[in-house]
Amino acid sequence: MSAPLADQLDIVIPTIRNLDFLEEWRPFFQPYHLIIVQDGDPTKKIHVPEGFDYELYNRNDIERILGDKAWAISFKDSACRCFGFMVSKKKYIYTIDDDCFVAKDPSGKPINVLEQHIENLLTPSTPFFFNTLYDPYREGADFVRGYPFSLREGVPTATSHGLWLNIPDYDAPTQMVKPKERNQRFVDAVMTIPKGTLYPMCGMNLAFDRELIGAAMYFGLMGEGQPIGRYDDMWAGWCTKVICDHLGIGCKTGLPYVWHSKASNPFTNLRKEYKGIFWQEEIIPFFQNVTLSKTSTGVEDLYLELADKVRKGLGHIDPYFSKLADGMVAWIEGWRLLNPPKAA
Amino acid sequence: MSAPLADQLDIVIPTIRNLDFLEEWRPFFQPYHLIIVQDGDPTKKIHVPEGFDYELYNRNDIERILGDKAWAISFKDSACRCFGFMVSKKKYIYTIDDDCFVAKDPSGKPINVLEQHIENLLTPSTPFFFNTLYDPYREGADFVRGYPFSLREGVPTATSHGLWLNIPDYDAPTQMVKPKERNQRFVDAVMTIPKGTLYPMCGMNLAFDRELIGAAMYFGLMGEGQPIGRYDDMWAGWCTKVICDHLGIGCKTGLPYVWHSKASNPFTNLRKEYKGIFWQEEIIPFFQNVTLSKTSTGVEDLYLELADKVRKGLGHIDPYFSKLADGMVAWIEGWRLLNPPKAA
Repeated sequence: MSAPLADQLDIVIPTIRNLDFLEEWRPFFQPYHLIIVQDGDPTKKIHVPEGFDYELYNRNDIERILGDKAWAISFKDSACRCFGFMVSKKKYIYTIDDDCFVAKDPSGKPINVLEQHIENLLTPSTPFFFNTLYDPYREGADFVRGYPFSLREGVPTATSHGLWLNIPDYDAPTQMVKPKERNQRFVDAVMTIPKGTLYPMCGMNLAFDRELIGAAMYFGLMGEGQPIGRYDDMWAGWCTKVICDHLGIGCKTGLPYVWHSKASNPFTNLRKEYKGIFWQEEIIPFFQNVTLSKTSTGVEDLYLELADKVRKGLGHIDPYFSKLADGMVAWIEGWRLLNPPKAA
Repeated sequence: MSAPLADQLDIVIPTIRNLDFLEEWRPFFQPYHLIIVQDGDPTKKIHVPEGFDYELYNRNDIERILGDKAWAISFKDSACRCFGFMVSKKKYIYTIDDDCFVAKDPSGKPINVLEQHIENLLTPSTPFFFNTLYDPYREGADFVRGYPFSLREGVPTATSHGLWLNIPDYDAPTQMVKPKERNQRFVDAVMTIPKGTLYPMCGMNLAFDRELIGAAMYFGLMGEGQPIGRYDDMWAGWCTKVICDHLGIGCKTGLPYVWHSKASNPFTNLRKEYKGIFWQEEIIPFFQNVTLSKTSTGVEDLYLELADKVRKGLGHIDPYFSKLADGMVAWIEGWRLLNPPKAA
């Protein structure tokens, strides 16, 4: 089984339960190092199937490592996964939910998600012009007639957003209206989300280049003590997309698929989501119009600038956004603590 | 065989040869009216297979109907097809090249291109935010979590750009470098090109709503007497996209596929294209940055405003663009002649 970049990629898994789902992933994931972020009660023992190389952090570890910045990492919410992004020392991250299993392509072959995500990350993105045959770097494809030659080198890829067969990633209202809908359509494509366009980034099956965009991959304040849940990945998606657009680097979506086994409870989801459903109507125009200054250099500085704009631009919606802006600052402080600048 | 909107859609075919390719399309196209635009020598007789309902226009007809505006319709280039868009009285247009045949889906079923194009045109577009499961209106799909509810009604669809199996639509340099490349990837998706993003619109397999965008679907000045060819559809694609973005209506790409049977000669293509390959490096930034005034109302006015901006913004590249701007104005004059405003 192919295990590309096994020494350069960590798999981050947030969980509150036994990780038996790893048995199915064993042929694909065993060559990689896992970072498990245990959510909820830290005295509970998480079972990891034998043979996996992993480190595990529970709430006590997060408090110990981050001290007075630890509050910025969500508790009782899978948003805690971003602690794993921060503590990793690798160039690439893949993160997956523990209810996602190996999907099959239309020929019945199990899909090696890491191989596809790594291909997505290692090939350029094309955010400045749309290619109608999708990923031009894929075997058997290229840029079509009319695609400017000056843009064919592409730009570095920061994010690879993978999709889900079976249970689609729907919000609570859609889950309630269509409880039986299953995603059975395998769309054999990877594409770059164009510059200037936002997308709903889901954290279930996501890879990114930690060096390029890791410092902006903060999953916000969700779960215990917060007025909102299920917007952690959306928040990270909006923030990373505007920073990638500013930097001229790319975000891809499409292949690879995972098999998403079970829908979360729509009633619980509605309670977590409902403020987000209102708020996103204002948040999205904010992100569509936000501009970052040319003087901020590097993702950390850009992220701090964005935190400031969030405080000023979204604070009127709810005091939560002021706290979230504080969280964004604390996140960068934690990031810098664990990721000090490399000696020149 | 399903023939949706047979009384509301014309099929426009530019050709210089016998239309025997229609035999394969008979089950799908026979219920529709064809507008055949004969290119080249008007004394040549075009053979249309029996049983099709059609009208045919040759160069003499174009001269007779348009008089002193006829020069705006290209000669010895498939750009002449846009005369068919102008002369039609229907709401929808489908246009196809005469070297395109019926493609098959992965199950081996022949693809009914018109059925898919009409579905694309009759369902809304979503240009303001990207849906990661592609067309949210398709059976078995919807908007994913995080998609703003205020945008879920979508907007009217102006254009449906279909793709090609077998011979991909490559420029001459790519044809030369990859003479054996064939498109064998059936991507089962339709998507909206996001607002603010340009795409290379190919005229081989294209449908549009004539009432919404027809007046901007001018294929420019190509072929005899012109310094450029093979940019007719690109020109129309850039112009229609910026006008659709301005109007807040949508352009879709993806399904349906046709089977493109043969590549045109790459040496001939290079001769036609090479100025365009240089020029598009300036034209595309022009279209990426052009803004249209809020006071222009309706596609015809917007197109005249765009003609003026083309003259001022691209005239420095080559005198051709000044002539092209004149052509755009003459096109609208011709359009108005044949499509007078309806009585209130």
